[in-house]
Amino acid sequence: MFDPVEAVKAFVRCPSVSTDLSFAEGMASARNHLCGLFHQMGLSVEVVATPRHPIVIAERAGAAGWPHIIVYGHYDVQPADPLDLWESRPFEPEVRDGYLYGRGVADNKGPLLVHVSAVGRLLEAHPDVPLGITFLVEGEEEIGSPSFAGFLKRARDRLAGDFVLLSDTQSPRSDQVAITVGLRGIICLNVELVGPAKDLHSGVYGGAVYNPIQALAELCSTLHNADGRVNLPGFYDDVVDVAPWEREELKKVGFVETEYAEFLGVSAFHTSPGLGPFEAVRFAPTLDFNGIGGGYQGDGTKTVIPSRAFAKISCRLVPNQDPERIQGRLVQTLRDRCTPKVSINFETEHCGAPYRVAPPDKGDDSGVASHHLRTAFRAADSSINEVFGRRPVYLCEGGSVPVIPCLKETTGMDSLMIGMCTPESNLHAPNENLPLDMFVRGIEVSERIFRAVAGI
Amino acid sequence: MFDPVEAVKAFVRCPSVSTDLSFAEGMASARNHLCGLFHQMGLSVEVVATPRHPIVIAERAGAAGWPHIIVYGHYDVQPADPLDLWESRPFEPEVRDGYLYGRGVADNKGPLLVHVSAVGRLLEAHPDVPLGITFLVEGEEEIGSPSFAGFLKRARDRLAGDFVLLSDTQSPRSDQVAITVGLRGIICLNVELVGPAKDLHSGVYGGAVYNPIQALAELCSTLHNADGRVNLPGFYDDVVDVAPWEREELKKVGFVETEYAEFLGVSAFHTSPGLGPFEAVRFAPTLDFNGIGGGYQGDGTKTVIPSRAFAKISCRLVPNQDPERIQGRLVQTLRDRCTPKVSINFETEHCGAPYRVAPPDKGDDSGVASHHLRTAFRAADSSINEVFGRRPVYLCEGGSVPVIPCLKETTGMDSLMIGMCTPESNLHAPNENLPLDMFVRGIEVSERIFRAVAGI
Repeated sequence: MFDPVEAVKAFVRCPSVSTDLSFAEGMASARNHLCGLFHQMGLSVEVVATPRHPIVIAERAGAAGWPHIIVYGHYDVQPADPLDLWESRPFEPEVRDGYLYGRGVADNKGPLLVHVSAVGRLLEAHPDVPLGITFLVEGEEEIGSPSFAGFLKRARDRLAGDFVLLSDTQSPRSDQVAITVGLRGIICLNVELVGPAKDLHSGVYGGAVYNPIQALAELCSTLHNADGRVNLPGFYDDVVDVAPWEREELKKVGFVETEYAEFLGVSAFHTSPGLGPFEAVRFAPTLDFNGIGGGYQGDGTKTVIPSRAFAKISCRLVPNQDPERIQGRLVQTLRDRCTPKVSINFETEHCGAPYRVAPPDKGDDSGVASHHLRTAFRAADSSINEVFGRRPVYLCEGGSVPVIPCLKETTGMDSLMIGMCTPESNLHAPNENLPLDMFVRGIEVSERIFRAVAGI
Repeated sequence: MFDPVEAVKAFVRCPSVSTDLSFAEGMASARNHLCGLFHQMGLSVEVVATPRHPIVIAERAGAAGWPHIIVYGHYDVQPADPLDLWESRPFEPEVRDGYLYGRGVADNKGPLLVHVSAVGRLLEAHPDVPLGITFLVEGEEEIGSPSFAGFLKRARDRLAGDFVLLSDTQSPRSDQVAITVGLRGIICLNVELVGPAKDLHSGVYGGAVYNPIQALAELCSTLHNADGRVNLPGFYDDVVDVAPWEREELKKVGFVETEYAEFLGVSAFHTSPGLGPFEAVRFAPTLDFNGIGGGYQGDGTKTVIPSRAFAKISCRLVPNQDPERIQGRLVQTLRDRCTPKVSINFETEHCGAPYRVAPPDKGDDSGVASHHLRTAFRAADSSINEVFGRRPVYLCEGGSVPVIPCLKETTGMDSLMIGMCTPESNLHAPNENLPLDMFVRGIEVSERIFRAVAGI
């Protein structure tokens, strides 16, 4: 059996930046490293080509009637820049004060290897454990998983397991594990307004034409009400109420609003009515402007009426909002509300559905179809309590992991998501790090979950 | 005597972009070229340092009692970007179909050299012409002439001429010259809104904070009424009615609205109530957005809540709006209307007052104090009629030349402004061009004006 920490280090040394074509070699070396680990564990490994970055599948074929667990992860990472803000080199992992530093160490190489190591250990001790296990590790998570849905449709049968286990979410602290039971969905839309055929001198022509920046500001200003809610027809129609236990779980964490405001650097929060900031980022849908541009942006002044202006808009969605329906309404509303004196163009980007899973003993269990997943949830709860010394909290998270609802929709499987890094892990940022105590304890928790599902 | 067209070409080859510090060499080469021409003409030349770009003064000292004409121009140009829309390189002038193309060819290098060439020719033919002439050529016109007012106060005595002659305005067509009798004033303001201390992940934090782009759009959307008027308290209080002859002159030009819409590339105009587009750009004050920016502007999607967003705003002003008063109101209004959940910062840029001069035989003559200016106006009228085959039209123009009201206020001099380029000249835009027939005829007109004032 390999050394888990050394295995993470070697994995991080492979610079697998998926968005940048010049990192193709790093992507290949990350795949090779992963395949090597799986081979050591005696799994059968397949590297499945996609239009961009291959998916790694490693299987321990199960007998009929055995439970079958799918472990999801990704071997690609975000770009490492800005490089000058790193204290050690991003692709030369380094341990300092109990944390392992490096790009991808927490997102997702370390947390993925929690489960890889747990299975390695399990199979070493119990070569005959009655359990089907499939690792499904993609290389496009950081670029929106463009090949994943298509792959999943083709591979649906071999991936027809009982549930998905993964660690690609966060926990509040390294000694307080969160099990993520909800993710927001997402739609993205770029809108462009075009006025005059070319940029015009604002002195010579100002007063005769509708300025596209003005039209854009007026259009964007219609998308929220004064109370912070999104002003789109029917936006909230399908939103289901948050369950009382979801609010209760959140309170257990002991988040402090003043600390949160300080962390964000804001003097005041801005939330939907009736929601505190910690609730709002998890339970409320949003419409945000991710970018805006038009005209002159340099120093000083250029007195121009620009020909065009654009905004990049995204919505975070909650159950049971339908991404395509919301995207369609957003497009139609923008079209309806835009002055006819400019023309309007749209570019739709990726969508992802919101996701909820009700853990056993919370809510009504209706979300968990699988007996084996209920077993896994209960094993996670008790083993986290034993290994970490605290029960996990069951939290919704504001971010989107579109593969989770995609797996649910395509295969019917729900997911057990255990956070193996923290808000201080600097995901997508310089000095990304992994708390090693959390990593080591996580392996123990993961192994107990596999044992419980196998019934050994 | 130098060749006028070759002199313009050489002038345009000097990339004198005043707003960009990296063009310092181009600024120096433009000054040197100009000084070379003035030396050839036998003028005494002085390059006067300012806090930023020097002013070039070239003088033919007059005897007591001689008329004294001040010729104003500027040797600086706008930035050339976007470069990819130019058909030839901006600083490599090229003649195509009777037009000279290049950055600054029409604003203001060609039109300035109309008068330089005319004086060169006059002095060659009449070395003893009884006329004081001072060229006053600045290098900061495109950045709002920040050093001009201070310079003018110090140099008031040597610049105490009878009137100012310049060509930094437009004519309707290359065969229909306009004499500009009004200019709009200008104020500029950059506003920046700051929300969270750093860019935030819109999934993890979306719903808790006021997005600065949203706040900016909402703020900017308050600045106009639905009827197209500017929505600032007191904005129209001091606006004086347009004189009937001003509307009459405008009608003489025979502008056609459908052609104008096609030229601008808009499906509909957007004007203040009661004004057609040709009136609106001359007689109405405006508030325009010249630029807006914030968040992610690249391809695709980056789901970020930006820390900050900005807009660049300018107003065009008409008599008797006071620039500083309007700027103060704009700042105060933005401050009042901005959500307190973001912070707001301002950067004020240059101001310029509006200007009107009533030509002789129009209006009440009260605006023209100088006998010599009346002579010049009448000479311009008749010589334009002879050389171009049409009488000039007397038009207000929408642009701002803040030095004109500044010269009036400091020295008492009014200005004779003869348009030596057209709306098709693409000022401040790619493929800026100068109609060479207009340039050549303009030199003849200019020379006749100098002769008339000198009485020869």
